[in-house]
Amino acid sequence: MTPQRTDQLQTPALIVDNDLLQQNLDTMATALPGARLRPHVKAHKCTALARRQYDVGHHGFTCATIREVEGMAKAGLGEDLLLANEVLDMSRLGVLVTEGHRITVAVDSAQTVKAAHDAGLREVVVDVNVGLPRCGCAPEDAGTLADLARSNGLHVRGVMGYEGHLMMAEPIAEKRHRTEESMELLLRAHEDVGGELVTAGGTGTYAVNTWANEIQAGSYALMDTAYGSLDIPFAQALSVLGTVISVSPKWAVADVGLKALGMDHGNPSIPGARVLFCSDEHITFAPEEPVSVGDLVHVLPAHVDPTVALHEALYLVHGDEILERWTVDLRGW
Amino acid sequence: MTPQRTDQLQTPALIVDNDLLQQNLDTMATALPGARLRPHVKAHKCTALARRQYDVGHHGFTCATIREVEGMAKAGLGEDLLLANEVLDMSRLGVLVTEGHRITVAVDSAQTVKAAHDAGLREVVVDVNVGLPRCGCAPEDAGTLADLARSNGLHVRGVMGYEGHLMMAEPIAEKRHRTEESMELLLRAHEDVGGELVTAGGTGTYAVNTWANEIQAGSYALMDTAYGSLDIPFAQALSVLGTVISVSPKWAVADVGLKALGMDHGNPSIPGARVLFCSDEHITFAPEEPVSVGDLVHVLPAHVDPTVALHEALYLVHGDEILERWTVDLRGW
Repeated sequence: MTPQRTDQLQTPALIVDNDLLQQNLDTMATALPGARLRPHVKAHKCTALARRQYDVGHHGFTCATIREVEGMAKAGLGEDLLLANEVLDMSRLGVLVTEGHRITVAVDSAQTVKAAHDAGLREVVVDVNVGLPRCGCAPEDAGTLADLARSNGLHVRGVMGYEGHLMMAEPIAEKRHRTEESMELLLRAHEDVGGELVTAGGTGTYAVNTWANEIQAGSYALMDTAYGSLDIPFAQALSVLGTVISVSPKWAVADVGLKALGMDHGNPSIPGARVLFCSDEHITFAPEEPVSVGDLVHVLPAHVDPTVALHEALYLVHGDEILERWTVDLRGW
Repeated sequence: MTPQRTDQLQTPALIVDNDLLQQNLDTMATALPGARLRPHVKAHKCTALARRQYDVGHHGFTCATIREVEGMAKAGLGEDLLLANEVLDMSRLGVLVTEGHRITVAVDSAQTVKAAHDAGLREVVVDVNVGLPRCGCAPEDAGTLADLARSNGLHVRGVMGYEGHLMMAEPIAEKRHRTEESMELLLRAHEDVGGELVTAGGTGTYAVNTWANEIQAGSYALMDTAYGSLDIPFAQALSVLGTVISVSPKWAVADVGLKALGMDHGNPSIPGARVLFCSDEHITFAPEEPVSVGDLVHVLPAHVDPTVALHEALYLVHGDEILERWTVDLRGW
């Protein structure tokens, strides 16, 4: 039987508030319309949700894994997919290119340029380190890398940077100033590289990063708890529905454990309760008001992206009514 | 093409050292032969690995979720499955019982007894709180609950307790003493409940818990990093294989991010390197010796159980040779 209401779901289950999701998508599409936003699908790993983003005007997407690129292409959303990450075995991407999908990959080394060429990729962006100690070549090396890519027959679409270290910077003036410094590095690289794309940013900097010509935000759609402290106009649309399975005098237990939660940002929260600890399949919490075995609880994960990656489906709801079941179809690698 | 060697794998990939795994299984089967161990499948979520445990003599298994019970039954390993957890909607378990699988569920409240009866379950154990603030009734309530179960036509097989708060207790004499106190609560409840089972324990207490007549250890098979500090004879058999995708002067990056790692115990480790931080799909680390783009690295997760739950498969290896691909087929709920 297909569940019609949330109280018919097997818990734990991922719940997405349809109104809040749509409000988030509309707000962002107003701020960064069309190609100004290249939504990052890593935040939700769900082509049905990506289709909603497409429907509000964003036709290019950002991906973090080969599987995400493949899934988006197979879902008919392969007009312009950017794999904003370095990979070395691109054979699966090469297949997609020959099938007619537009796939662009990030490169930051001679090895990744060679990998792109060998696998039959046609388009790349040069990934530039703009301050986050992760991938990306030094800004001064970007032009040489672009030349190498072109000499390998690759079309260089521009530059990419990710100011991930600034997503939580405060106050806003400080964030704007530091983002400008970071993007100056990217623009300097862009002078040497050329191409039409200056792609960067995320949900934490979407409103201040006016230097990139497209922003790779993803978290805004479901909205991450950590970003909740920022003054940005997006609402938390996702929670994990659980069932109270045991009640003791001083605590209660629900069936939302750490295997159902992204735990890298720490424990989740439960409105109206103090979370004591999480086990594999349990959350022990002290509720402010008494709860009973069988009650439903909404658990708010501390980090949305890895939480979604643990579930097979998102349930789109309006109140207690289930509108749609969306498969989390971009999981894995 | 089916990968034959680890360097042909799409990374990140879960790698299990076959020799170490078998050594762990054999060591435990010698210490707790046959029915003295009821292996907990939550630690690996893999019926192929459970089959190995069956083959060394353990024919009853412990599960944490309905999906784990279902998967084990469908894999032909349903001789005696204990769902060591409270659930309220047991309809899927009832189906398995009518199909001839032996399913026992934990109950700790009138509601869970009613749920077991309503779904057509036939056998239960009474889950008793032995000191871990989670599920389980008070020891003094166990007899009443057993009577209630029997009056509902359920066969009560005995009592269950989990001294999870003592897994890391040290030194060993202290662990033994506190485990004895904990198990005294369980044995007192058992006097009121009756039945043949006194089921408890885990990898951290398997050697000291001589009061339970079966031990529910699971982590010993792949062996958890956190347990590595304990003086127990099991070897870490699991790692996450990654590829170095970017190298900068002061750090390198591999493609094993927090979506490929159980993060509730903190950052993973990389032998011969200092881990700086994890992002969704990246680990930034400072290697002691230079690494190159394309090199393979072994990342040791801080918590094995939730790491496995993030992957589709385990690759059983001997050195660089892939012996088998085992699907992680017990994921989800």
